[in-house]
Amino acid sequence: MIRECIDACLACVEACEACATACLAEPHLDIMRACVRLDRDCADVCALTARLLMRGSDLHMQACALCAEACEACAAECGQHEHDHCQRCAEACRQCAEVCRKMAA
Amino acid sequence: MIRECIDACLACVEACEACATACLAEPHLDIMRACVRLDRDCADVCALTARLLMRGSDLHMQACALCAEACEACAAECGQHEHDHCQRCAEACRQCAEVCRKMAA
Amino acid sequence: MIRECIDACLACVEACEACATACLAEPHLDIMRACVRLDRDCADVCALTARLLMRGSDLHMQACALCAEACEACAAECGQHEHDHCQRCAEACRQCAEVCRKMAA
Amino acid sequence: MIRECIDACLACVEACEACATACLAEPHLDIMRACVRLDRDCADVCALTARLLMRGSDLHMQACALCAEACEACAAECGQHEHDHCQRCAEACRQCAEVCRKMAA
Repeated sequence: MIRECIDACLACVEACEACATACLAEPHLDIMRACVRLDRDCADVCALTARLLMRGSDLHMQACALCAEACEACAAECGQHEHDHCQRCAEACRQCAEVCRKMAA
Repeated sequence: MIRECIDACLACVEACEACATACLAEPHLDIMRACVRLDRDCADVCALTARLLMRGSDLHMQACALCAEACEACAAECGQHEHDHCQRCAEACRQCAEVCRKMAA
Repeated sequence: MIRECIDACLACVEACEACATACLAEPHLDIMRACVRLDRDCADVCALTARLLMRGSDLHMQACALCAEACEACAAECGQHEHDHCQRCAEACRQCAEVCRKMAA
Repeated sequence: MIRECIDACLACVEACEACATACLAEPHLDIMRACVRLDRDCADVCALTARLLMRGSDLHMQACALCAEACEACAAECGQHEHDHCQRCAEACRQCAEVCRKMAA
């Protein structure tokens, strides 16, 4: 499950980075504010969680709990937008949240 | 000079983070796209540079050279906007770029 | 209190980075294993927490809770060693843990 | 090539994190000092480079140049040790350095 969780975190970092960049290029940027903001947080938290998992840190369960929260918040926002990058990001966030919840349990 | 460079990098991380968040709350977000984008890069590069300096890494000169470029690009963009957060960010970027250029020399 | 917490996190990142590097140069490295390991985690968690605070993230309370745990674990280990870098690190960790506990409450 | 470079950077982050942790558990830690030190730098630089690539940053070429240097230094050290984790890390570093050199050119 650690392998699965690392992969889900890294996929989520990438989806969030791509979504934030794509949001900042959208014509209707005004409605993407929360999306960019949450992408930024989610990418940073997923990146830290992946690294703590990779190194076998004692803190990995607590990091996974924080990561699940970051991913759920980002998924809730991105899931409301129809852009492909938002939908892909929401899906990556949901998958990461699910694995992280299991790891944290 | 290492002390001065660490402090300049950390001040720049903070100014960039604050500027990105404030930009995302501006009414005329449309013209702040590049600012948010460059704040994001500059904060990440300054944060890495500060940590390599703190730990006495062999790579600190090369990191400072990259950091100076990130800061100069961000200062050039932020300096064009009259918002206080942009002006403060541009100033922090200029100071960081200057110290990093010296460190990299 | 946010200002105080950011400063405590950054001071802790720096103390952990310096401690890890100094531990790796100690003649009796054998007893410093846990110290290096925990310094590494603590520095990364404090760095993330500082940045979430700087940007006004919704996740800052949860990050502070994780940060307090990282700092307490590192302080408990570093506090057992008489090296100056360990004692300084333990003190920075304790101060950061205290402020983070308040932020998380 | 961007896809290949992101993957090489992430594989290198993971190999370096695993190598550092495994080094810190080796019976003859005394000869692993440089390995832990360089793993730490290499993991951080690769992680930043991956994220700048993911977001399409203007700085990606300069980051790749720095990353190649970090990887080459780490490969040179890890390659001298016969532990599996060191050999795997050296190989990941070499592959990442090669792709990063191409990206930076």
